[in-house]
Amino acid sequence: MPSYKAPLDDMRFVLNEVLNVSQLKEIRDFAQVDDATINQFLEETAKLAENVLFPLNATGDREGCVHNHNEKTVKTPRGFREAYQQFCQAGLPGVACDTAYGGLGMPIVLNTALSEMFCSANMAFAMYPGLSHGAYNALHTYGTDEQKDTYLPKLVSGEWSGTMCLTEPQSGTDLGLIKTRAEKQADGSYKVTGTKIFISSGEHDLTSNIIHLVLAKIDDPSTPPGIKGISLFVVPKFLPSPSQSGVGARNPVYCGRIEEKMGIHGNSTCEMNFDGATGWLIGEAHKGMRAMFVMMNEARLGVGLQGLALSETAYQNGLAYALDRKQGQPIEAKMSDENLGKPAVSIIAHPDVRRELLTIKAQAEAGRMLLYWVSMQLDISLRHPDEERRKAARKIVDVLTPVMKAHFTDNAVDNTNGAMQVFGGHGYIREHGMEQYNRDARITRMYEGTNGIQALDLIGRKVMKENLLPAYLAALWHDIIAGAGAGVCPWLLIRVAKSGWCRLWWITYKLRLKAALGIVLSKAGMPGYMRSVMVDAGGMATDYLKLFSIVAMGHMWIKMATVAKLRLKENPEGQAFYETKLATARFYSDRIMPQARALSRMINRGSKSLMSIAPENFAHTQTNVGLKSWTKPEKPAGTAT
Amino acid sequence: MPSYKAPLDDMRFVLNEVLNVSQLKEIRDFAQVDDATINQFLEETAKLAENVLFPLNATGDREGCVHNHNEKTVKTPRGFREAYQQFCQAGLPGVACDTAYGGLGMPIVLNTALSEMFCSANMAFAMYPGLSHGAYNALHTYGTDEQKDTYLPKLVSGEWSGTMCLTEPQSGTDLGLIKTRAEKQADGSYKVTGTKIFISSGEHDLTSNIIHLVLAKIDDPSTPPGIKGISLFVVPKFLPSPSQSGVGARNPVYCGRIEEKMGIHGNSTCEMNFDGATGWLIGEAHKGMRAMFVMMNEARLGVGLQGLALSETAYQNGLAYALDRKQGQPIEAKMSDENLGKPAVSIIAHPDVRRELLTIKAQAEAGRMLLYWVSMQLDISLRHPDEERRKAARKIVDVLTPVMKAHFTDNAVDNTNGAMQVFGGHGYIREHGMEQYNRDARITRMYEGTNGIQALDLIGRKVMKENLLPAYLAALWHDIIAGAGAGVCPWLLIRVAKSGWCRLWWITYKLRLKAALGIVLSKAGMPGYMRSVMVDAGGMATDYLKLFSIVAMGHMWIKMATVAKLRLKENPEGQAFYETKLATARFYSDRIMPQARALSRMINRGSKSLMSIAPENFAHTQTNVGLKSWTKPEKPAGTAT
Repeated sequence: MPSYKAPLDDMRFVLNEVLNVSQLKEIRDFAQVDDATINQFLEETAKLAENVLFPLNATGDREGCVHNHNEKTVKTPRGFREAYQQFCQAGLPGVACDTAYGGLGMPIVLNTALSEMFCSANMAFAMYPGLSHGAYNALHTYGTDEQKDTYLPKLVSGEWSGTMCLTEPQSGTDLGLIKTRAEKQADGSYKVTGTKIFISSGEHDLTSNIIHLVLAKIDDPSTPPGIKGISLFVVPKFLPSPSQSGVGARNPVYCGRIEEKMGIHGNSTCEMNFDGATGWLIGEAHKGMRAMFVMMNEARLGVGLQGLALSETAYQNGLAYALDRKQGQPIEAKMSDENLGKPAVSIIAHPDVRRELLTIKAQAEAGRMLLYWVSMQLDISLRHPDEERRKAARKIVDVLTPVMKAHFTDNAVDNTNGAMQVFGGHGYIREHGMEQYNRDARITRMYEGTNGIQALDLIGRKVMKENLLPAYLAALWHDIIAGAGAGVCPWLLIRVAKSGWCRLWWITYKLRLKAALGIVLSKAGMPGYMRSVMVDAGGMATDYLKLFSIVAMGHMWIKMATVAKLRLKENPEGQAFYETKLATARFYSDRIMPQARALSRMINRGSKSLMSIAPENFAHTQTNVGLKSWTKPEKPAGTAT
Repeated sequence: MPSYKAPLDDMRFVLNEVLNVSQLKEIRDFAQVDDATINQFLEETAKLAENVLFPLNATGDREGCVHNHNEKTVKTPRGFREAYQQFCQAGLPGVACDTAYGGLGMPIVLNTALSEMFCSANMAFAMYPGLSHGAYNALHTYGTDEQKDTYLPKLVSGEWSGTMCLTEPQSGTDLGLIKTRAEKQADGSYKVTGTKIFISSGEHDLTSNIIHLVLAKIDDPSTPPGIKGISLFVVPKFLPSPSQSGVGARNPVYCGRIEEKMGIHGNSTCEMNFDGATGWLIGEAHKGMRAMFVMMNEARLGVGLQGLALSETAYQNGLAYALDRKQGQPIEAKMSDENLGKPAVSIIAHPDVRRELLTIKAQAEAGRMLLYWVSMQLDISLRHPDEERRKAARKIVDVLTPVMKAHFTDNAVDNTNGAMQVFGGHGYIREHGMEQYNRDARITRMYEGTNGIQALDLIGRKVMKENLLPAYLAALWHDIIAGAGAGVCPWLLIRVAKSGWCRLWWITYKLRLKAALGIVLSKAGMPGYMRSVMVDAGGMATDYLKLFSIVAMGHMWIKMATVAKLRLKENPEGQAFYETKLATARFYSDRIMPQARALSRMINRGSKSLMSIAPENFAHTQTNVGLKSWTKPEKPAGTAT
């Protein structure tokens, strides 16, 4: 049976010792954030995660959600309703929400710590409140005062939940293809009609109302085609009413079916049918993508967080098994017969098992550091009194959002696989629980924009268009200097610095130069060159993101090693926690950083080999020879030596 | 819905054009192997795979096997019985089996092609006959004439099936820990008692008898402890009898339960309880591991084959979706607004989708080439009249068996993941069928020795102890010369050669030198050095295997590119198949070969960072600080820039 303990020590190390989160006090809104509050908050939420959510994880996976076709309702797994109520009673839906609407007004970075624990304990459950927060954010940013007053208090209290309704059968990544239509009514509302698919938490029995944020095109000849003609609407399941329950008439938006999926069975993934449902425009007409990106960017950070959270749970369980399971002799004892019949050792003695575990550990700890650091930058970007600080922080958030979304989720699939691998064949058996983490993790690489889309967002928008790399490299440089001052292993510093400048910066520089040249040439009527730059960027996008990720994770190891070094200088005795941090940093530097070199080579080789095969020749079919005319060559061209 | 078409063209390219399999005619046993026979064989078996086995793949996954606790029987999914009968009627269980026992006596390489198709179409089904072949092999090699006469004809006809009973709850990788006991009886038979777990096809309803090959320790004070005291027994479900049905009394070996697994639901994974079941020794007492390795080595090739087969199916379906699904504009068109509203293009236009597909294609095609090449070496090693040829071929088989087992199965997990990724969110939905391939693939990294064990087998036994690398590098050199003669892209040749010699050979050379020095030193009483060499080898094992794999796959691209070049020289027109081979070889060289450099760096950095953390410090717990004493440092060590 799997287990989960919130890694409070590591969280505190990151929050307090490295990030010094209580410095956020200088932001007026966070004046109440002191150490005691943070500490109590972490301990209380850890209890809920460990004792309430985690026990529902395996049962939720087995039971799944049940759709009642006649009543068009969805029943969540046993225990989810009660757990959700406990969650709301503790005020947790509104941890980082505006106090004006009943939120606790705490920093986002603390909500991140909470969400990590909840996703580690039960990802399918954590998705229900997780999506509400996106709806809260979009309404908070773009809603009218009336909309805010109507929806925000209920979303903040958790009485109502929210969804994001984007995807349609023919329209996934390419939202320009959506067909859902909104027809304006005399009272200023709209009738929304269309079918949305893959709507997480689209229908369930946890809350008294569900607030759908829906992308649709206004039925009007002036609506521009494609992506520029999309608007965002709020479409509640029950129309808001001043009645005591807060809800009025049932709006015609119904769950047509739920998907059978590989994992996250405890979360309902719904097809939602809008049959002329009443909705109201959020923000301006045709500016829906802008409002949607407020939700989407938060959702992307949230998905990265899910990936990290699953890596953590996978690590804990892989480690527990490696300490408990006894097989074989230490490798150095195998030389002689004299060890025959000696008791077997815990498999953590075996170097290859350690490699598997340390790979997960090194990525989970650096991932936590990166996620919390960026979350704190998000707090600064939203609330800091100094505009320069806000802007600088926003750049870090923007450039690292696709990096974390893609890298943490790729890692989650690999790490849940790696932890299963520690179990050997037992990892494949459901009762050990490891295979569920892998199945749950798998969706994170795909939803809220596939990782390929994240890579294009990074290279196309964040690096080439908005030129955010220098802001990130400045932060990296600052930490390298601090690390050098603290006496961090020079190899780690040099390898990260080299990958940051020689590889990442150099590739970016060449690409931007080529693009600039392309723009000049295309004005001179030579667009072919520009096309090839774009194709090159597209072809290297995923490897570029991986390279960026490896640098960013190494950067986080520098941050952590710096603090560990200082602690060990203050008190060199019995500080196993800090010594382990340094050893893990070294593992990262020795065994993961070298990938940077391979990736920069792959990137440098360009996209020619990607683009030279015509679509019809991708199949293995020897079309020019044909199945029947298999003729043996005269002389054997290869011989069976 | 997924689909599967046997890649006959690519198989013929490998079998005929590259390997020239019909040269096996020079081996007397294969005199009947001509092109027409091979061609007909491939086409007939392809029909069975596509039309009979494939349609049962998704239904088998959903239905799974059902264990009847009272009767201790297992029911396979609907249609499996009928499909199995068709399989037997076609004589396919005995394709590569001895004609003396009713086999067709065809080369193993043709059985490999058949097995690839069957595993691609329905891996869970293909495992039932797959394991019989291991039992056939062990009995054929080590059985008495009486045992052979009793069991082989029935295994060859498929009337009976076989299993391998190795694992016990406390004994997986470390078979020295098994507790199953065999008590000698007056008539020379044994009573076998114990519990075996994870027995694939341990109980089912496809055959009239099931022949268990069981590892057990003879209950005798002279039995050596650990691995050296293990014997192999044949324990049939029904005792053989000269009756018409061929079977007599029910032997007390029963299925206690079947496992709930992540995938391969159509195959029964059984706990088998031997309650004093009658069995007979195979080969010599206490020499069971030797006999077991005959089965095991074949099983490892078979698992590698499963990995390849799933990569192929994943590729076909990822490709079909990429050709069909329309999203977005070509990346080079995105610069301007004028494309808004233009029809979306097939996603195969997008460079990153191509990268995903070509990664699978490059590995599936090189994997097929490697698997078939090694299978042909296996034929040569067993049947060639020239002893030198036999020996050389055996070395290739031995060194590449762990490479293929581990690399093809790691690839299978990555490739089934990659093909899912092409589907975006749709890949996560069961009805598209992609997630089943990923779940099915996941076991292949673990069973028949985890991939970590394969890596230790490669570096410890095959490379350091048996020194088989030179034999492999000789074959590589031969093909590099042939490639250079044919005008294969020099970059491909140079990169593979460099990785083969500068990296693989150099690492091996250093390691063997260190080991030799260690042996000298340990005789002089300095065993510490030797231990560190062993630990280094253990710590690098997985990366060494990956490096070896990348070289071996590049080697296969050289073999294939050589033939493609020759074909294009003969006839440069309309040869898209060969041009695509060259383009895929280039992709491999540009985008996969660079990993070799990163791996050799990781290997060179040694195992120090693996071994420095004590087991109790692997957890994130700040044991020296304690949960409650969270003290804020005076000065912020890292700051939130």
